[in-house]
Amino acid sequence: MIGRLNHVAIAVRDLDAACKVYRETLGATLTAPLPQPEHGVTVVFVELPNSKIELMAPLGADSPIASFVERNPGGGVHHVCYEVDDIIAARDRLKAGGARVLGTGEPRIGAHGKPVLFLHPKDFLGTLTELEQV
Amino acid sequence: MIGRLNHVAIAVRDLDAACKVYRETLGATLTAPLPQPEHGVTVVFVELPNSKIELMAPLGADSPIASFVERNPGGGVHHVCYEVDDIIAARDRLKAGGARVLGTGEPRIGAHGKPVLFLHPKDFLGTLTELEQV
Repeated sequence: MIGRLNHVAIAVRDLDAACKVYRETLGATLTAPLPQPEHGVTVVFVELPNSKIELMAPLGADSPIASFVERNPGGGVHHVCYEVDDIIAARDRLKAGGARVLGTGEPRIGAHGKPVLFLHPKDFLGTLTELEQV
Repeated sequence: MIGRLNHVAIAVRDLDAACKVYRETLGATLTAPLPQPEHGVTVVFVELPNSKIELMAPLGADSPIASFVERNPGGGVHHVCYEVDDIIAARDRLKAGGARVLGTGEPRIGAHGKPVLFLHPKDFLGTLTELEQV
C-alpha cells in the first residue's frame, strides 16, 4: 500500500539555525522558507536526490507543533510521510484493521497542496505517520 | 555534501510486531530479519521505491539501542542516514565546523557493510544522524 518515502519532517524552534545546519554544515540544497499560516508552520525543504527533509518551525499562536518544540527545544523528528495512490482506500483499509486516524478522519490539504492524513503514533511504532496522496 | 536519504531507522522492542505493522497494516515489502550480533541489533528493512525504513530491535545484553527502547517502549525514530561519497572528507569537514562525531571518530563498518559514522544529535536538530559512504 505505501509507496515512496515522501519526506521526513524535523520540527525546530529556530528555522534559521536549522537551515544553517543543513545548508552549511551538511552542504545540502534548501528551498526558501514558506510560511503556511493555515497549517501553523513555516517550512523549508531540504532537497535530497531521492527524498526530502521538511524542516518546520511553529508559526502563530496555535501552531500544532508548539508543544513538540517545547518538549524538544533542540528539535527532533516529528513525522515521516509515505505516498499512497488512493488516500480514501488507504484510510478505509487502515481503519478496518483498527488503526487510528487522527482528526476527523477526512483528508485535508497538506503543506504540499495534496490530500493528507495523519496516523496515530501509538499504532505505528511510536512514529507519527503521514499519508499523502500523490 | 549529503546525498541520498539512505534510510530512516525505527527502533522497537518487538521486531515481529513491528514487521506486522509495516507488512500487514501498511502493505509494504520487508526483508527477512538479520541478526547482527556485532552491532547488538536485529534488523529488517522495509523496501520502499526510493528509500528504506530500518526496523531494529535490541540483540544481546549490551545492545546500543537498549536504553532507547526502554525510554520508548512503543518504538520511535532512532536515526536518519544520509549517503556521502567520501566519509573521511565529510568527517573532517564536519569536525572543522565544530560538529561532534560519536565514538572514536573513525568510521566503522555498519549494518549494511559500508563505512559509517554517527553525528551527535545535539548538533543536528535533536536527530541522531548517520553518514554512510556508498
